[in-house]
Amino acid sequence: MQMSHRISGFQCSPIRRLVPYAREAKKRGIHVYHLNIGQPDIKTPAEALAALSSFPDDIIAYGSSEGRDDLRQAWAEYYNRFGVGITSDDILITTGGSEAIQFSFMTLCDPGDEIIIPEPYYTNVASFANIAMVTLVPVTSTMDECFVLPDIGEFEKRITPRTRGVLLCSPNNPTGHVYSPEELTALLEMCRRHDIFLIVDEVYREFCYDGKTFISVLAYPEYADRVICIDSFSKRFSMCGARIGALITRNKEVRDSALKLSQARLCPPEVEQYVACAAFRAPATYLEDVKKEYEKRRDFFVARLKKIPDIRVSEPLGAFYLVVEFPVDDAEKFAIFMLKDFSHDGSTTMFAPAEDFYVTKGIGRKQARLAYVLNTGDLAAAADCLEAGLAAYRKKYMS
Amino acid sequence: MQMSHRISGFQCSPIRRLVPYAREAKKRGIHVYHLNIGQPDIKTPAEALAALSSFPDDIIAYGSSEGRDDLRQAWAEYYNRFGVGITSDDILITTGGSEAIQFSFMTLCDPGDEIIIPEPYYTNVASFANIAMVTLVPVTSTMDECFVLPDIGEFEKRITPRTRGVLLCSPNNPTGHVYSPEELTALLEMCRRHDIFLIVDEVYREFCYDGKTFISVLAYPEYADRVICIDSFSKRFSMCGARIGALITRNKEVRDSALKLSQARLCPPEVEQYVACAAFRAPATYLEDVKKEYEKRRDFFVARLKKIPDIRVSEPLGAFYLVVEFPVDDAEKFAIFMLKDFSHDGSTTMFAPAEDFYVTKGIGRKQARLAYVLNTGDLAAAADCLEAGLAAYRKKYMS
Ligand SMILES: Cc1ncc(COP(=O)(O)O)c(C=O)c1O
Ligand SMILES: Cc1ncc(COP(=O)(O)O)c(C=O)c1O
Repeated sequence: MQMSHRISGFQCSPIRRLVPYAREAKKRGIHVYHLNIGQPDIKTPAEALAALSSFPDDIIAYGSSEGRDDLRQAWAEYYNRFGVGITSDDILITTGGSEAIQFSFMTLCDPGDEIIIPEPYYTNVASFANIAMVTLVPVTSTMDECFVLPDIGEFEKRITPRTRGVLLCSPNNPTGHVYSPEELTALLEMCRRHDIFLIVDEVYREFCYDGKTFISVLAYPEYADRVICIDSFSKRFSMCGARIGALITRNKEVRDSALKLSQARLCPPEVEQYVACAAFRAPATYLEDVKKEYEKRRDFFVARLKKIPDIRVSEPLGAFYLVVEFPVDDAEKFAIFMLKDFSHDGSTTMFAPAEDFYVTKGIGRKQARLAYVLNTGDLAAAADCLEAGLAAYRKKYMS
Repeated sequence: MQMSHRISGFQCSPIRRLVPYAREAKKRGIHVYHLNIGQPDIKTPAEALAALSSFPDDIIAYGSSEGRDDLRQAWAEYYNRFGVGITSDDILITTGGSEAIQFSFMTLCDPGDEIIIPEPYYTNVASFANIAMVTLVPVTSTMDECFVLPDIGEFEKRITPRTRGVLLCSPNNPTGHVYSPEELTALLEMCRRHDIFLIVDEVYREFCYDGKTFISVLAYPEYADRVICIDSFSKRFSMCGARIGALITRNKEVRDSALKLSQARLCPPEVEQYVACAAFRAPATYLEDVKKEYEKRRDFFVARLKKIPDIRVSEPLGAFYLVVEFPVDDAEKFAIFMLKDFSHDGSTTMFAPAEDFYVTKGIGRKQARLAYVLNTGDLAAAADCLEAGLAAYRKKYMS
């Protein structure tokens, strides 16, 4: 029987290829420090967890396709707290930020249309592009330049009649870069010049360090018409499993199109929307504390990693990821070695080889993404493993 | 700015076109009996609601992309209770049956591929086809024949090199028909002959009346390789808002493809999966009572509707819908009249014009779908409204 080509063409992500090795390592009694996934170890706000017991209905009924009114209102208020004038009408609740990215692609693009994206990028975007049959056109940001926004000229060079927009992720997964207002404005101007959209994935918005204030793309009303913002509860409130995200836009045509997609799938999860609403009632200290905690981890982890000989570390300004460049031939081979052939004090480390975070083939081969979603004690132990593992790997394969 | 054509081509469903009229009627103080939507008024099992308070984790974390193991296990046991040998490996939890239908289309079809579907059909399937750029090829089932499966020859005539499968819904939304084992086997044989898939949407499986046992397509292991079953908690456990569905198949290739789609969107809602798991612990009497209640309503409502002069009523064997043919020129015009220009004892009725349940243009114009998701008292009052409204409409427009 014949099946779809669009899916059979899908590459499984590097992390998934490593899972069997991690499983084996655990079976051998080895402790694995997981630096490979963006699952925070921070507790969900108590207000949200408490709301689980107060769900008021005795029928878990379909809600409206655009999402619960109370949640959309609370979300709009959250924006207004930092001076971004958004109304609940501009907010479409989605099943995770993931669905919001899919809706953006489906709304803007027909098969064969193009979205320009700085690489390295959040790999699942490749799957969403595959599903929508959209071509991702990469612009490479480099470690040498701390993964800042590449020259606007590099974006302009790639614009064709099929370009529908640019997808930016800020704070960035995987690099940790936070694009500056200047970078954002330059990109918005470019999008205006070429009459295309700018989608900004801000799911890590809350995690912006060094006392800097994160500036949302929604804070530029003069470009409102061409802007789509992707948002999510997953990381902000440590509620990844709740699947609550949002597509936010002031462009009515985009919203109406995305609403049609929403209506087809009926509604986002109702109980978790109710719970999400309660998360917004957490005291301001919740998010402040979470941010402080991640910032502390970043400071610790970056400093520690830099002590590993011959390793290069990105300068993360936000989110909870960083990119390292290992002095090895192939980061995936090294990752497998760490899980398969190595342990240090009964432990090892799992991380995400970065090659698949690039559309362009052959770059990023020595790079990996590390997520600092562990406490500093565990991060220290994980770094010890990395350092010892790296020495062992180089001795075995590279001398 | 240019946007996608696939979405702008979307038709909004007839029910959605009526919503503003219903809103206006309510503003004028008129009570509206909703026969238009498949939202049960039955309570969610107490076991499920109670589970909300016992969610054990203090982080609502990402779960596995294929869904929670406990839920998949419980679901497999549910199948085994009625003798269908399914393992949890065959079950992929999805965000509603809706996502399972989308995954089926994406897994089987590239743009331009074809799925044959008996009409009238569940309209959102048209949106899913649009999203996947799949062509729905209709085979018309008729009121004259109680909406039984059209001749197999009608299906075969429509098979082309681009046909990837047939999508059946049983018990059927909107007709209420339950396909017999003979109809199912004939279709399976035909699919085997032409080496295509059979997708069966069984989300109303539990609601099969007249003492008949519903036979799932999964009960035919000899065709296992070409079968995909769509399942859902929405109607069965009156948990529509929980968004818990499943794609079930013994075809490993299909499952692996669908799993890639699952992985891209990370995981289904975790809290609601936990709650769903508890719903399976409801006593057997829960589902028996729900079925009895719907059967009582069907008996009452069908008998009552048949007393309305010149109306034709389908013979629903399952689900909680039926199709009527009104003695009018246009059921949508009549539906709008009921909301805009009519009331009876301060009430009126909202129902779904059936024209959009057909792919073929121009048929079903006089038909409507009625959902009997109200208690018999309300159904009686709704039928009174319909009868009086029909007389008033015919007097005004058709005499
Ligand atoms: C950059 C980015 N965008 C979107 C998502 C999707 O998150 P969710 O669907 O859980 O909101 C993630 C998850 O890791 C992410 O890293
Ligand atoms: C025939 C049919 N299939 C699938 C669905 C989707 O239901 P859900 O996504 O809530 O499981 C519905 C909802 O009404 C339906 O009627």
